[in-house]
Amino acid sequence: MTADAGDPGFEDLGYARPDTDREARLGLPEVVYGPGKSAAQMAGVVTSLLAANSGPVLATRVEPDVAARVRAAVPGGGYDEPARLLSWRRAEPLGFGLLVVSAGTSDAPVAAEAAAVAEVIGLSVTRLTDVGVAGLHRLLAARAELAAADAVVCIAGMEGALPSVVGGLVGCPVIAVPTSVGYGATFEGVTALLAMLSSCAAGITVVNIDSGFSAAMAAHRIAVRSRR
Amino acid sequence: MTADAGDPGFEDLGYARPDTDREARLGLPEVVYGPGKSAAQMAGVVTSLLAANSGPVLATRVEPDVAARVRAAVPGGGYDEPARLLSWRRAEPLGFGLLVVSAGTSDAPVAAEAAAVAEVIGLSVTRLTDVGVAGLHRLLAARAELAAADAVVCIAGMEGALPSVVGGLVGCPVIAVPTSVGYGATFEGVTALLAMLSSCAAGITVVNIDSGFSAAMAAHRIAVRSRR
Amino acid sequence: MTADAGDPGFEDLGYARPDTDREARLGLPEVVYGPGKSAAQMAGVVTSLLAANSGPVLATRVEPDVAARVRAAVPGGGYDEPARLLSWRRAEPLGFGLLVVSAGTSDAPVAAEAAAVAEVIGLSVTRLTDVGVAGLHRLLAARAELAAADAVVCIAGMEGALPSVVGGLVGCPVIAVPTSVGYGATFEGVTALLAMLSSCAAGITVVNIDSGFSAAMAAHRIAVRSRR
Amino acid sequence: MTADAGDPGFEDLGYARPDTDREARLGLPEVVYGPGKSAAQMAGVVTSLLAANSGPVLATRVEPDVAARVRAAVPGGGYDEPARLLSWRRAEPLGFGLLVVSAGTSDAPVAAEAAAVAEVIGLSVTRLTDVGVAGLHRLLAARAELAAADAVVCIAGMEGALPSVVGGLVGCPVIAVPTSVGYGATFEGVTALLAMLSSCAAGITVVNIDSGFSAAMAAHRIAVRSRR
Amino acid sequence: MTADAGDPGFEDLGYARPDTDREARLGLPEVVYGPGKSAAQMAGVVTSLLAANSGPVLATRVEPDVAARVRAAVPGGGYDEPARLLSWRRAEPLGFGLLVVSAGTSDAPVAAEAAAVAEVIGLSVTRLTDVGVAGLHRLLAARAELAAADAVVCIAGMEGALPSVVGGLVGCPVIAVPTSVGYGATFEGVTALLAMLSSCAAGITVVNIDSGFSAAMAAHRIAVRSRR
Amino acid sequence: MTADAGDPGFEDLGYARPDTDREARLGLPEVVYGPGKSAAQMAGVVTSLLAANSGPVLATRVEPDVAARVRAAVPGGGYDEPARLLSWRRAEPLGFGLLVVSAGTSDAPVAAEAAAVAEVIGLSVTRLTDVGVAGLHRLLAARAELAAADAVVCIAGMEGALPSVVGGLVGCPVIAVPTSVGYGATFEGVTALLAMLSSCAAGITVVNIDSGFSAAMAAHRIAVRSRR
Amino acid sequence: MTADAGDPGFEDLGYARPDTDREARLGLPEVVYGPGKSAAQMAGVVTSLLAANSGPVLATRVEPDVAARVRAAVPGGGYDEPARLLSWRRAEPLGFGLLVVSAGTSDAPVAAEAAAVAEVIGLSVTRLTDVGVAGLHRLLAARAELAAADAVVCIAGMEGALPSVVGGLVGCPVIAVPTSVGYGATFEGVTALLAMLSSCAAGITVVNIDSGFSAAMAAHRIAVRSRR
Amino acid sequence: MTADAGDPGFEDLGYARPDTDREARLGLPEVVYGPGKSAAQMAGVVTSLLAANSGPVLATRVEPDVAARVRAAVPGGGYDEPARLLSWRRAEPLGFGLLVVSAGTSDAPVAAEAAAVAEVIGLSVTRLTDVGVAGLHRLLAARAELAAADAVVCIAGMEGALPSVVGGLVGCPVIAVPTSVGYGATFEGVTALLAMLSSCAAGITVVNIDSGFSAAMAAHRIAVRSRR
Repeated sequence: MTADAGDPGFEDLGYARPDTDREARLGLPEVVYGPGKSAAQMAGVVTSLLAANSGPVLATRVEPDVAARVRAAVPGGGYDEPARLLSWRRAEPLGFGLLVVSAGTSDAPVAAEAAAVAEVIGLSVTRLTDVGVAGLHRLLAARAELAAADAVVCIAGMEGALPSVVGGLVGCPVIAVPTSVGYGATFEGVTALLAMLSSCAAGITVVNIDSGFSAAMAAHRIAVRSRR
Repeated sequence: MTADAGDPGFEDLGYARPDTDREARLGLPEVVYGPGKSAAQMAGVVTSLLAANSGPVLATRVEPDVAARVRAAVPGGGYDEPARLLSWRRAEPLGFGLLVVSAGTSDAPVAAEAAAVAEVIGLSVTRLTDVGVAGLHRLLAARAELAAADAVVCIAGMEGALPSVVGGLVGCPVIAVPTSVGYGATFEGVTALLAMLSSCAAGITVVNIDSGFSAAMAAHRIAVRSRR
Repeated sequence: MTADAGDPGFEDLGYARPDTDREARLGLPEVVYGPGKSAAQMAGVVTSLLAANSGPVLATRVEPDVAARVRAAVPGGGYDEPARLLSWRRAEPLGFGLLVVSAGTSDAPVAAEAAAVAEVIGLSVTRLTDVGVAGLHRLLAARAELAAADAVVCIAGMEGALPSVVGGLVGCPVIAVPTSVGYGATFEGVTALLAMLSSCAAGITVVNIDSGFSAAMAAHRIAVRSRR
Repeated sequence: MTADAGDPGFEDLGYARPDTDREARLGLPEVVYGPGKSAAQMAGVVTSLLAANSGPVLATRVEPDVAARVRAAVPGGGYDEPARLLSWRRAEPLGFGLLVVSAGTSDAPVAAEAAAVAEVIGLSVTRLTDVGVAGLHRLLAARAELAAADAVVCIAGMEGALPSVVGGLVGCPVIAVPTSVGYGATFEGVTALLAMLSSCAAGITVVNIDSGFSAAMAAHRIAVRSRR
Repeated sequence: MTADAGDPGFEDLGYARPDTDREARLGLPEVVYGPGKSAAQMAGVVTSLLAANSGPVLATRVEPDVAARVRAAVPGGGYDEPARLLSWRRAEPLGFGLLVVSAGTSDAPVAAEAAAVAEVIGLSVTRLTDVGVAGLHRLLAARAELAAADAVVCIAGMEGALPSVVGGLVGCPVIAVPTSVGYGATFEGVTALLAMLSSCAAGITVVNIDSGFSAAMAAHRIAVRSRR
Repeated sequence: MTADAGDPGFEDLGYARPDTDREARLGLPEVVYGPGKSAAQMAGVVTSLLAANSGPVLATRVEPDVAARVRAAVPGGGYDEPARLLSWRRAEPLGFGLLVVSAGTSDAPVAAEAAAVAEVIGLSVTRLTDVGVAGLHRLLAARAELAAADAVVCIAGMEGALPSVVGGLVGCPVIAVPTSVGYGATFEGVTALLAMLSSCAAGITVVNIDSGFSAAMAAHRIAVRSRR
Repeated sequence: MTADAGDPGFEDLGYARPDTDREARLGLPEVVYGPGKSAAQMAGVVTSLLAANSGPVLATRVEPDVAARVRAAVPGGGYDEPARLLSWRRAEPLGFGLLVVSAGTSDAPVAAEAAAVAEVIGLSVTRLTDVGVAGLHRLLAARAELAAADAVVCIAGMEGALPSVVGGLVGCPVIAVPTSVGYGATFEGVTALLAMLSSCAAGITVVNIDSGFSAAMAAHRIAVRSRR
Repeated sequence: MTADAGDPGFEDLGYARPDTDREARLGLPEVVYGPGKSAAQMAGVVTSLLAANSGPVLATRVEPDVAARVRAAVPGGGYDEPARLLSWRRAEPLGFGLLVVSAGTSDAPVAAEAAAVAEVIGLSVTRLTDVGVAGLHRLLAARAELAAADAVVCIAGMEGALPSVVGGLVGCPVIAVPTSVGYGATFEGVTALLAMLSSCAAGITVVNIDSGFSAAMAAHRIAVRSRR
C-alpha cells in the first residue's frame, strides 16, 4: 500500500469501504461491481472514488433503471446500455490497439462490455464480429486486423474453438472469454471455458464466463506494462 | 428379430448369450467387448459367433497377452496391437472411403482403433494425422483428401475443436471422437466431448470418449445405407 | 473455401458476417441461430443468405413474435410454431426416408424441430411417437417403418434407453437426440445424453440435448453422401 | 432397540462396536464391511456377531489373502471368491425366488455378489446372464423365468437400460444395480445410476453402484415381509 | 407381451400410444406423466386407458388449471391438489400397510404424492411427519407404527439421513425418496440422493428426487408380490 | 433426550412435530426453517415452541408478506427484513463478542442474517464490511477489531479468499460462510465453498452457502462452551 | 503481524519461507504440510520453526520412510504412524476435553490424525469408535461422554449422517469431518461432505475431506478462546 | 500462414506434421507435447523443427528416461529434470522481467516448469517461493520484487487465493496457474482454477491446471508485444 499515515487508503461508508488507494497501486481506480448494490450505495461509492482519484470510474453490470438513478445522483456519468456500463471520466489514450473478436452475433453483449470498458480505460478498440470457425475464411480475411493488434480479446460460446485458431495465427497476447451462448451441452459457458483452458494453442489465457470486463482489464495491464 | 421358431437367435453359454441373429438384423455379427472377460470366455463367444454368422468377428480392447491366448484357442484370428483389436474374417469391401483425421500424434491409439475396425468391416481407410487447429494450413493442405471422403472420422483431445473446423469444410458425414489426451481442465476427454456436442458446425455427430470403435461402426451404418 | 478472388465468401454486415460460401462447400446455406439476435439482425442475415445462395434458408429457435417481425421484413418465409422454425425456399427432395422416433409425448417439440428441418432440406419424414421402452410392443409393432428407413432419428428424455433398443433392431444410421424431459436425476437431459453416448448398441451417434436441428442436419449429410 | 437393561445391544471391542442387537431388530445380523479393516479386526467382529446371534454372518468385499487369514482365525467360514464374500452359517430358506439378471458378461462380479449374498441369507437364486437390450430376443426368451420370479435384481453398466425394459415386462419388485462397466461417458457407473433413477418404468428402485450386496439385502427385506 | 394377434396392446392416437396392455403385464394400467402434455392430449390418453383397462388410471404432476380441463373432458376423475394427482377409479385394497415417513414439514408435497398415489392403487397409508434426525426422540416415539408397517417410504431433503436411521430400526422394505428441500450444498436434492444411495443401513433402495410417485409404485410391486 | 416419561419431548401438530425438548438438550429452542411452510403452519410451530421453552424462538428465510401474517397470529414477534428473520424473545447476553466480516457490499444479506440471528441468541455483534482481499489494507486497518473478537464469522463470495487471510491473522475460531455472489465460474457459491474447505489457513471451519444462520448458531455453540 | 522492524517474521530458505511469526499471531507455530516436500526440505523447515518458536512443531501426512529420515536429521521428534504425524515438543495441556467420534472402523486413520494432532497441541482426547447411525443405541449408550465433552469432532464416510444426530444431542461445538470411506455414490467423501454441509442440525461446522488435522486445529481455536 | 507456394509450412512425417511455419507466424517454433509420443517420434519432430526454424525448440512433460533417449538421438539438447523440460537452443534475451511467485513449497514442480520454459524463450526470471496468504507478511516483504516485475506468474494450489492478493498489489499482467496440490475438496486443482477465474482482483488471467508451460508462453506473448 502506498497510503501514508494520514490516509488509510480507503473511505469507510459503513456499507462499503471504497479502496481509494487502488489507482496509486494499480494505475486505475477501483471498479464498482453493480449486482447486489442499491442505486444509493452505488452513487456513494462512485462519489468517493471520483473524489479520491483522477482516473476513470466505472460501474459494471448495471441495469438501465438503476443506471438512470445513479447518473441523476452523480453528474457527469455516461451509460452504455448494450455493455451495461456506467462510467465517469475517460483515461488518456495509451496508444495500444485492442482487437475484440467474437465468434457469433449472439456473443455481442460480452463483446460490447469488453469494448466499452477498454475504451474508457484508454485502449483503442477495433471490433471483428461473427468469425466463427465453421466458416474459417471470414477470419482469414481479417489477417490485416489480426497482424495490427497489440492484443486480441477473443470471445466465443458453444464449443469455444475460436481462441485456439486465433492463437495459432498471431503472436501477440490472446485473452479468451467464454460466453454462455448455446444450450444443452454448452452448460451456460462451462464447455467453452474448459475448451479455452485446454487449448492446444500455447500461451492463451482465459477469464471468467461472460466477463468482457475482465478481458479489458487484463489488456490494460498489458498496455500499461508495454509503455513502461 | 428375424430368428425363426427353431432358432432362438442366440446361444446360451451360461456366462454369455452371443446374439447369433445380429448379422441378420444389422448386417454385421455382434462385436465382443473385451474388458471383464477371461480368455476362455472370449474364445467361447467368438467360436459361437463364427459358427452362426458369415461376416467378420471382432473383439475390442483386448490386451496382448489375452489376445495371444484367444488366438491360440480360436485359429485364424489376427491381432492389431496399436488398435488392441482381435479379428477373424474380413468383410467384402463396401466401396466406401473413410477418412480418419486426428488432431495430434498423441491421439494415435484411438485413430488406430477406428482405422483397424473400419478396414475389417469393409471400409476403405485413409489416415490424416496431426492436423490440429493451432496450425490450420496442415489441414487446409489436405483439401483433396477431405473432398474425396465418403465420411470423416474426426478425432481430437484437449479442446476438441477439429470437428468444428472440418464440419465447416465438407458436406459429408462427420463423426467426432473425443479423446482423453491432455491434463487438468481436459478432464480425461470430457471437455472435448462437450465441445464436440456444442459444435457450431451443423450436423456433426459424436460418439463416446476414446471410442474409435464406435466411430467405425457408425461409418459402417452409413456405408451400408449408401449402397442400398 | 471455394470462393474466388473477387468474392470473399461472406458479406460483412457489421453485426454479422453471413457465410455466403457455405452452400458451395457443404450443400446447404448457413442456418441462422435465432437466440440473441434481434428481428432486424435476423432479417438482414436471411436476406444476405437468400441473395447469395439458391437453397433453403432457415432460422432456428425463433419465438413467434420475433418470427412475425422477420417474416414481415423478408417475404416468402414460413413459420412452423411447434418447431420454432422459420424457413424460406424448400430443397429438392433427396429421395431419402428419415424416420423420426420419439420415446414419449413430452418429447414432441424436439421431434417437431427434427421433422420440420428435415423436410425443408429435402428429406422425406415419417414420425413414430410414444414408443418408450417400458412398453416394447409399441416399437416392435413398427418393424415395417424401421426396416424401410434410410436413417433413424431417435429422440428420448429420462433414461434415454430408446436408441440402444432401436440400434439393436436396425442396421441403418441411428442419430440419438437426448431431451430435457424429466426431473431430478435426469438433470435436464444430461442423463439421457450420457446414456446414449454409453450405449451398448454399436455405431449409435449422438447430438446435443434437445437439438432436433442437429439430428436433421446430420441426416442430410448422410443423404447427400448416399446420392453421390 | 430391543436390548434390555442388562444387554447394551453391542459389544465394545475398542476398534469396533458390533451391533449384536441387529438380528433382533432387522432379522439378520450386522454384515461386516471389509475394506479398511485388518484381518484381526474382521475376525474379532465376526466372532462377536457369531456369539451374539443365531443367523448367518457375512463380510463383504474381502480380498482372498485377507479372507484366508480370517477363516483361519474363525473356523467354519466359507469364501466365495468371485463374490469376494466371507460367510458363516446359512439362513433357513425363505421360499422366495430371486432372479438375478445381468446385461453383460462383464457385469459378472456384481451379479456374483448379489447371488452369493442372497443365497446365504435364505433366498433361492436363479441367474440370467448377458441379456442386454441391443439383442432384446435374449431377454424375451426368458419370459418364463421373469414370470416365476418373486423379485428381480437387474444389473447393468454402460447406459443402464435393462431395468427399464424388465420393469415394463414384470409386475414384481425390480431392484436395479448400476455397474462401473464401460469407459468414457459411463463415468464408472454414474451414467447407469442416473439412467436407472430416471427410468420411465414405474416403481423401479435403485441401489449403489456395483452393490450386489445392497440388492440382495433389499430383496431380503421384501422376502421377510412377504412371509409375514 | 400378453397381447394376442387381434390386439396390438396399444392404441395409436398419433400424438401418443397408450400401452393398453400394461395392466395385463404389470397389474396396473399405464400412468400418465403430466408435464409436456396438453389437457386435450391428457384427456385422450386417459380415455383410452380407462376403456382398455379395469384398474385405476392416474395422471401425475398436473397443475390445477390443467386438471380442471381434463376432469371436464373425462368425467369421474378426482384431483388431489397437494399431490398434484388426477385419478379415475380406485383399486381394491391390497391389505398392505404403507408407512409414509417424512423428515420435515417442507417435504409435505412429496409425501402427499406418495400417499395419494398409494391409496388410489390399493395400499393402506399411515403418515408420520417431521421426524428428522436432529430430534431422534420424535422418531423413536413412533416405534409402534414402524413395527406395524409392511413397508416404509422414507422422505427427506437436506442431508437425507432419515432412511439410514429408519433402515437400522426396521427389517421391512425401506424405499428412500430424496427431496429438493434445502439450499446451497443440498443441490436441489442431489445431496440427499447421494446420501441415501451411500447409506450404511443395508438394503435401503432409492428412487428419483421428489418422486413420491415412484416410491408408491415400488411399494405396489412389493404388495402385489406379498399376496401371491 | 432429557424428556421424562410424562413428556414425549415434542408436540404432534399433525403437519409438524416441534422438538420441545431441544432447549433442554442444546441450550436453544428449535429454530423454524421457513421455506415450504404456510403462515398458519409457522404460527402453529412457533406457538408450540414458545409455550414449551423459555428462550428465543426464531424462524429463518421468511418473506415479508408471510412474516406479517405470522406476526399477526403470534404476538410479540419482531421481523428483521434484510435478514428475513422472525423472532420472539431475546436471549440473555452471553458476553461473547462476535465479529461478522464480509468481503463485499453484495454479501450484505448473508451478513445481515448472521448478525441478526447472533444478536437474538445472546451474542454481541460487531460488523466489518467490504474488506475483500484485492485491497488488503482495508482489512489490516481493522486489526483492533480482529484482536478483540471472541470468534469471527467470515463471509465471502466469488473466490472466497477472505477466510484464508483472516485465519492467518487471528487465533480465535473462524467460521467461513461462502455466498452465491458472482457469476460464471463462481457457480452460485460452490467455488467459494470449495475454496474455504481447501484453505491453507489451519483450523478454519465452513458452513453451507449463504447460511448466515448456521454461522451464528455455530458461534453460539462456542460461546456457551466458553462460559462453562 | 507482530514482527518488529528487525524481524521480518519469516526465514527465507529459498525453497520455503517458514512463518516464524505465526505462533505470536495465532498461538501455535506453523504446521508443515508433508506432501510434495523432500525429507531435507521438511527437516530444514522444522529446524527453522523449532528455533523461532517455543510451542509444538508438527508435520502432517508424512510417510514412514520420509519420517525416519526427518527424525534422523532433527532430533527429538516423535512419529505416530496411524496418524502419519511427525511432532516435536508437546503443548501445555489446555484443560479442554475433545471427544473424537467416528462412525465406522474404516474411518480410523482420520480419527487417528485428529486425536494425535489434538493431543500434541494441548487438548485432552477421548475416542468413541464405530457408532454409526444404523445402530443408534451404540451412540446413545455414550451419553455421558457426549455430555462431558467441551467439543466433538465427528467423523463419518458414506452418507455422513452421524454429525446430524450428534448435533441434535449436544449443545457444544460439533466439527464434522467427512471421510473417503465407501464406494460408488460416495464419490470419495464428496457425498459425506455435502451431507454434513446440508445438515438439519443447526450450527454444525465442516472441514475438508479426511482432514482430521483441520478438525483438531479448529478445536484448538475454540479451546484457546475458552481460556481467555 | 506466411508459407509461400514452394513451402507447405509443415513437414509430413506420417505420424506427425510439425508446423515448421509457426516461428514465422508467432515468433517461436512449435513446442512438442511429450505425453503419448515415443522417443523416436519426439526425436523426429524435434529434428524437423530444429532444421526449419532458428529459435529454441522445446519438448514438455518428458520423463527422464525418455529424455535421455531423445537427447542421444538429437545432440545439443539440455534437460531440466524438475521442470521435465527438454530444450535445444536458447532465445535472445527479450529484456523482460518475469516474477514467478508460488504459494507453497509443494507447488515447486509447476514453478520450475514456468521458470525453465521462460528462460529458454528469452525472459529473465526471478523466483519468489512459499508466500501463501496465511502469512501475508512474507509476500508484503517482497514489494520490491513485485514492483520491478514486468509480469507475474502466480502459482497456487488448495484455495488458489494468492493471485487475488497479488492482483491487488501490482498493476502489471498477472497470469494465474492453479496447481493440483492438496486433497479432498481441492479436486486436483479444480478448486484453485475456479477460484482464480472468480477472482475479485480485476484483470487476472488464468491458464490450465499445473501448466507452468502455458503461463510462460503467455508471458512471452506479452514480452514480444512490449518490444514492438
